[in-house]
Amino acid sequence: MADKLEKTAITPSTHTAPPARFSHGVRKGNLLQVAGQVGFLPAVEGQAPTPAGPTLREQTLQTFANVKAILEEGGASWEDVIMMRVYLTDVGHFAEMNAIYNEYFADLKEAPSARTTVYVGLPAGLLIEIDALAVLG
Amino acid sequence: MADKLEKTAITPSTHTAPPARFSHGVRKGNLLQVAGQVGFLPAVEGQAPTPAGPTLREQTLQTFANVKAILEEGGASWEDVIMMRVYLTDVGHFAEMNAIYNEYFADLKEAPSARTTVYVGLPAGLLIEIDALAVLG
Amino acid sequence: MADKLEKTAITPSTHTAPPARFSHGVRKGNLLQVAGQVGFLPAVEGQAPTPAGPTLREQTLQTFANVKAILEEGGASWEDVIMMRVYLTDVGHFAEMNAIYNEYFADLKEAPSARTTVYVGLPAGLLIEIDALAVLG
Repeated sequence: MADKLEKTAITPSTHTAPPARFSHGVRKGNLLQVAGQVGFLPAVEGQAPTPAGPTLREQTLQTFANVKAILEEGGASWEDVIMMRVYLTDVGHFAEMNAIYNEYFADLKEAPSARTTVYVGLPAGLLIEIDALAVLG
Repeated sequence: MADKLEKTAITPSTHTAPPARFSHGVRKGNLLQVAGQVGFLPAVEGQAPTPAGPTLREQTLQTFANVKAILEEGGASWEDVIMMRVYLTDVGHFAEMNAIYNEYFADLKEAPSARTTVYVGLPAGLLIEIDALAVLG
Repeated sequence: MADKLEKTAITPSTHTAPPARFSHGVRKGNLLQVAGQVGFLPAVEGQAPTPAGPTLREQTLQTFANVKAILEEGGASWEDVIMMRVYLTDVGHFAEMNAIYNEYFADLKEAPSARTTVYVGLPAGLLIEIDALAVLG
């Protein structure tokens, strides 16, 4: 029998406290799961979470930054991600999101992760949410 | 080469038969995946699946019970879960779901799992669906 | 410390190039993640991706074929899948999708995978999208 695997919550200092009893990221064994991230700016004490801006570009880039902060705090990088789930609110945003995505991931050194994009409802003002599963090692 | 990993279906006695050729839960290696659960009461022979009630609170607590039954039947607990996906039908339910969630998970001894919440369509009468990924060991 | 795990993109020859910097499938360690697949026919050089037909049946069977091609290219089969996520656009399609699903998976030799079905928006003309997580070994 192997030793008991440790389970670790990942909470970057840039992040607002989760609005409920969940972790922004969690690592157990060689899996790191990033919770659904949105385009909130780094947390400011005493202020409500604020989106990076009203546009898809602003929110997408901030969402990537928020996912990345969790990956790095957990000892991983984009190279370790095997799946990203992208939730958009508008089918009309697909082409623009892909352009931002390609730009952002242009320098990826390993195989890009798999991805699923679907169109759902999100809280008012939010245009994109992304979560990610990484395999470390 | 390691031995072939066993794949096991998990079917708690409290559950209705799945409406199609899928498993309520499945374990392979140290991963246990719980299928999307809704707020159906324990199965009664010869009766159609019935939600625990019309309210978000009733359905959420029953959905937690249904996920938990699968985790336990598979040798896991909430402590092993690294990701929960919460599907709601109404953005207006977010705050209430979080309150129920925090109450339910108040006594969690390890890091809470990551979580993604999005708003989708569900079959008539159902307000919430949850699935979960656990890492055993 | 174990050797660094290899991460491999999986791109069946039948598939159109992904519309962005992601992989149709990716394998790392013993996990194989299949990206969201839709009912596009095998790629034809110089032609835009074309759905197998307008009906749920045509698109579901083609989507299964597309997921299967990625599993097989990655050295896996349906038997290795622990989770399938099925995205439909219409609650009214659930029963028909289940009938096609049961027919397709009638001969599965191991425990069927877990599954979550939710109702979302998809690009015009697409009725179903499916992704899958497999554990090899």
